[in-house]
Amino acid sequence: MSDPRIAGASVTQFGKHPERTGRDLFAEAGLEALSEAGIDPEDAEALYYGNFMGELAEHQGHQGPLMAEAIGLDVPATRVEAACASAGTAVREAVKTIRNGEAEVVVVGGAERMTNIGTAAATDALAIAADDLYEVRAGMTFPGAYALMARSYFDQYGGSHEDLAHIAVKNHEHALVNEHAQIQKEITVEDAIDAPTIASPLGLYDSCPITDGATAAVLTTESYAEEHDLDAPVAITGTGQGGDNLALQDRPHLAQTPAADKAAEEAYGDADVGPDDVDFAEVHDCFTIAEVFAIESLGFYERGEGIAAARNGETTRDGDRPINLSGGLKAKGHPVGATGVAQLATVAWLLDGSHPRADAVPDSTVGVAHNAGGTVASTTVHVMEVQE
Amino acid sequence: MSDPRIAGASVTQFGKHPERTGRDLFAEAGLEALSEAGIDPEDAEALYYGNFMGELAEHQGHQGPLMAEAIGLDVPATRVEAACASAGTAVREAVKTIRNGEAEVVVVGGAERMTNIGTAAATDALAIAADDLYEVRAGMTFPGAYALMARSYFDQYGGSHEDLAHIAVKNHEHALVNEHAQIQKEITVEDAIDAPTIASPLGLYDSCPITDGATAAVLTTESYAEEHDLDAPVAITGTGQGGDNLALQDRPHLAQTPAADKAAEEAYGDADVGPDDVDFAEVHDCFTIAEVFAIESLGFYERGEGIAAARNGETTRDGDRPINLSGGLKAKGHPVGATGVAQLATVAWLLDGSHPRADAVPDSTVGVAHNAGGTVASTTVHVMEVQE
Repeated sequence: MSDPRIAGASVTQFGKHPERTGRDLFAEAGLEALSEAGIDPEDAEALYYGNFMGELAEHQGHQGPLMAEAIGLDVPATRVEAACASAGTAVREAVKTIRNGEAEVVVVGGAERMTNIGTAAATDALAIAADDLYEVRAGMTFPGAYALMARSYFDQYGGSHEDLAHIAVKNHEHALVNEHAQIQKEITVEDAIDAPTIASPLGLYDSCPITDGATAAVLTTESYAEEHDLDAPVAITGTGQGGDNLALQDRPHLAQTPAADKAAEEAYGDADVGPDDVDFAEVHDCFTIAEVFAIESLGFYERGEGIAAARNGETTRDGDRPINLSGGLKAKGHPVGATGVAQLATVAWLLDGSHPRADAVPDSTVGVAHNAGGTVASTTVHVMEVQE
Repeated sequence: MSDPRIAGASVTQFGKHPERTGRDLFAEAGLEALSEAGIDPEDAEALYYGNFMGELAEHQGHQGPLMAEAIGLDVPATRVEAACASAGTAVREAVKTIRNGEAEVVVVGGAERMTNIGTAAATDALAIAADDLYEVRAGMTFPGAYALMARSYFDQYGGSHEDLAHIAVKNHEHALVNEHAQIQKEITVEDAIDAPTIASPLGLYDSCPITDGATAAVLTTESYAEEHDLDAPVAITGTGQGGDNLALQDRPHLAQTPAADKAAEEAYGDADVGPDDVDFAEVHDCFTIAEVFAIESLGFYERGEGIAAARNGETTRDGDRPINLSGGLKAKGHPVGATGVAQLATVAWLLDGSHPRADAVPDSTVGVAHNAGGTVASTTVHVMEVQE
């Protein structure tokens, strides 16, 4: 089994593109990824594609073949949907396809168009990632759900809105050098604390924005990369996926994310690394509290200790293990069906010593991407490593 | 690589269940499949699940973890969507997962709830399987699209509505012994010809009904089956998937389905069999003309010759190669996200000599399932064989 190499990756400008269709956004990302990879598109053998709310936002299902056509590929194209973890889950299927020898070149990506329907309709569309019968009909939306989880965390382990504010400040700071980020704006802890409340204790700066965008990556085998003399030093060496009950009410604990624990354990085992080996990570901070859950599930912190990481400067650019150097979902933006592959792209760029952004984490060798869906009912974790 | 064995399968009653939720339907199918398999649910390691219009019909995305919970599984759960080929595509990912050694037991299934929103809304929801910008906004629905394809076929190769009527008569006849079928009603060629026109040349009996239903199958490795002394004589020995441009206008030919040609070629190659080895098949007859495309793409007939197969009695129960012994989508019903696995279940039952329905095709050893999405922009083909 060959661990897939990341031969090329691309991310569109994240932000508001209400006038651009999903296919237009994905075409930009997919064509650029193929071009960057230096791979003849004729060699691509499959497309795995993440999208979440196309049915509601664009009246468009069956996007797999649509997106293959958009980037000129005549290949089997499969859309995978796991809410905000759609693209991470697509990566997992793409990795499987490379590993079992079915294909030498696989394109994986995702796109989401959200701003065209407006914030209220987008919030309603996002809610279908929760349990309609037992959560949505009772009035739950995602800010409310994560607010419940944050309250539970504070109650169980301690912590405050000010701790969360440090996460927002850090991710806004990180996004300042990410040209694709939706929000490039420095904020202070006071800004975050004083911002309007969305769902107590979460305020405006605890929540990621509504985002349009697309991303794609080209995966290939080590032997294909060697044969074609590709610059593809980064491999996906570990993949993991975990699930949990969809509704919060069906879980024993609101302040832990066992789906992510399981995904991390599987991915680390697959890659034969441990949390201490990881130099940096991109994690799913749809809300600031979600970054805390993520870094605890990834084993970087004990339960109850992740809350202080940003405040202590441990997860900032200059910290021991930077988290969300892209700006995270918080500042980079979160086109939900694309996010998992955008994380993959960021990690690959940061690990690839020849990439301009690699100076953010010099000499790093192991990076991780953590992508979560719903209130972490679906999670994928991927370990990436620089290969000799 | 181990070819997955089908250890158990289940199909709910197909029909109108507007009062039952998708999770309720899937729970019935999934629990019954696990029970029939005689496998401890704790041993299941993944769920692949097909669903198409849950966002529109049930305001519910992210159904993977929801459905895992519904059948008591704590496993990674992935929803795959390829319109009406969603479940066939889920099978393909499940096969991959068994073959590359990632799991010993995988549940694959699908569900669709359609009648609760009424026929007009269901027709509109089905339309998102076509290209919204270039087809749906121009007024296209699927009966219209397949009518165009039928006209093109008649124009290119000959054939008439009466030929199609024989397909409807055959599939209605076949469904009479399928207790799960939505429609158990014998019809005549005259009935089909005299029925109201839906989109000329297609009439009421050329079109499958709107259906609620669910299905599941339990796949396992040969070694697991042996170790646990399971009755699982049927293996999935070949898998293939093909894609095409989503919009009809972007294709060179309206009377051929190259996505299915490619899927068939790959599946046959994978299984090392040819069309002549196939004893019977379940194919995607969402409209009668689609059965013609399918049996030509599967290599059972030359282009232009599939149209006469039913009329000549070659694809009836007593013919040389029976097609759609379940009644097909036409009479069994078509809960779109479930159909691909329902086909798999039918083929497994017919091949398994100990199953009551196996007398339909005595001594058969090779069966095929052909599942198509949209106007055959996505297709999967699976070859199943009785193992010694």
